[in-house]
Parts: sequence; C-alpha cells; structure tokens
Amino acid sequence: MLNVGFIKLRHFSDGRGFLVPIELGSDIPFNVKRIYYIGAVDHDVIRGRHAHKALHQILICISGSVTVTLDNTIEKQEIVLDDPTIGLHIGPLVWREMAKFSVGAVLLVLASQHYDESDYLRSYEVFQGQARRLFGG
Amino acid sequence: MLNVGFIKLRHFSDGRGFLVPIELGSDIPFNVKRIYYIGAVDHDVIRGRHAHKALHQILICISGSVTVTLDNTIEKQEIVLDDPTIGLHIGPLVWREMAKFSVGAVLLVLASQHYDESDYLRSYEVFQGQARRLFGG
Repeated sequence: MLNVGFIKLRHFSDGRGFLVPIELGSDIPFNVKRIYYIGAVDHDVIRGRHAHKALHQILICISGSVTVTLDNTIEKQEIVLDDPTIGLHIGPLVWREMAKFSVGAVLLVLASQHYDESDYLRSYEVFQGQARRLFGG
Repeated sequence: MLNVGFIKLRHFSDGRGFLVPIELGSDIPFNVKRIYYIGAVDHDVIRGRHAHKALHQILICISGSVTVTLDNTIEKQEIVLDDPTIGLHIGPLVWREMAKFSVGAVLLVLASQHYDESDYLRSYEVFQGQARRLFGG
C-alpha cells in the first residue's frame, strides 16, 4: 500500500523476556520528535479516524494486540499488530483507525514532528480530496 | 534519593482510554537518543542488576506493574511502577533491579545516550567503589 510499510525491529528475546532497543537517528527512517502511547482502550472503541498531511509515524503494539485499518482512498487494508518487534510505518495521507484493543494492549507511536494540529486531516471528505490528488483514482 | 526522581507526564484520559504524549526536547529533561522496552518477563525474573556511569533514563511502566529496587550504597528504595503517566528518572551511579513483572507488563525506557557498553557498571563491587566516592558513606 502506498505510503505504508513495515519495519522489523532488532530484539533480544530469551527466557528473561524481550528487550527491543531503538537507537534514534539510525533505527528509524526519520528524526523522532515525539512519542506517545495509547492504552486502556475498550475493545469496542475506535481511535484515530484521521490522516496527516506530512507526518510520518511508526506504530508498535508493545503489549497485546490492536487492529489498524488503513485507507488511502485507492486501497483499504486491515492489519493486526500483535508483535512488539514489528513497526507499522504510516506516511502522509493515509486514513487510520485503531480498534479491537485487547485487554492491557498498548500502542506505542514514534512521530516525525512535534504535535501540530494544522497537520491533521480530521474530515474524511477533505482527506479524500487531498489523497486523490496525490494517489490518483 | 540522590540521582532519582519522578516525572509526572501529561495525559489525555477519558472513556476512550489514555494517551500520553511526550515531546522530545521539552517534556524530558535530557536529549533522548535511545528508547527501549522490555516485556514478557516472568514474575520471578529479575532484570537490570547494573548501574551506569553517566546515563540518564526515564522508566515508565506503560502496561501492568513492575517493582524497581534502587540502591546508591547509602540508601535502598523499592518502587512499584504501575501508572503509565509516571516516569521514574534514574541518573548515574544508581544500581537498579526490575522484578515482579505482572502478566503483560511492559517497561518503556527513554535514555540520554546511544548504547555504550563502556558506560555500564555490571559488577556491584566496582559500582560500590564509584558510588561511595560520589555519594560518600
């Protein structure tokens, strides 16, 4: 899917659990300026429901599982994140919804920019217009 | 305790769960160059068991709970981390052990330097010598 990809993270896993190290500046394909994490989300709650004009993000489900639905107006894709060593890279102009959080699930996000409300596309119709100009269709 | 402190993180909590944003460069009192997270740790496993010469770290238990024991040779302190909006700041020359991970618990760590094996003190005796020179006792 355009502007979407996966990153396989290094990890040390043994009988003592897993440790996933991320060196900022080399392990992530952009400068990380902001991180955030989301948790304690009931199974029937849908989060996200927006796209970004320029922001790049890596989503990592570091405990439990969460289902991410991506839509660039040409394609729609549903991805189950349940592996703390897999990062889902979402670039600009991809509508995302996060749902079906398992009990105790936490989604960690690494973002390429500080919070900037003007980078959000919160109206699906406005997003659709911009995405179609970029991706065609 | 010397070289140990807590950071209260901003958060947005409502019926949709919690979201904890961390703007790197302003919300954390050092430049974050590395992050890592630890999970799937059995309840009877003890992790850590080292100190650092210069590294600063913020430990956040973002799912479940974990018990951190800190020791600077003068004082010893046991801290239960079970709140994703509280960061435990550990500075140089503090011996740490992390134990009693609950099922599904994940510990997120923000570090002030890239990985550098030469910054680790893995021998308690060597650590003790250095800590006593710094802290007295």
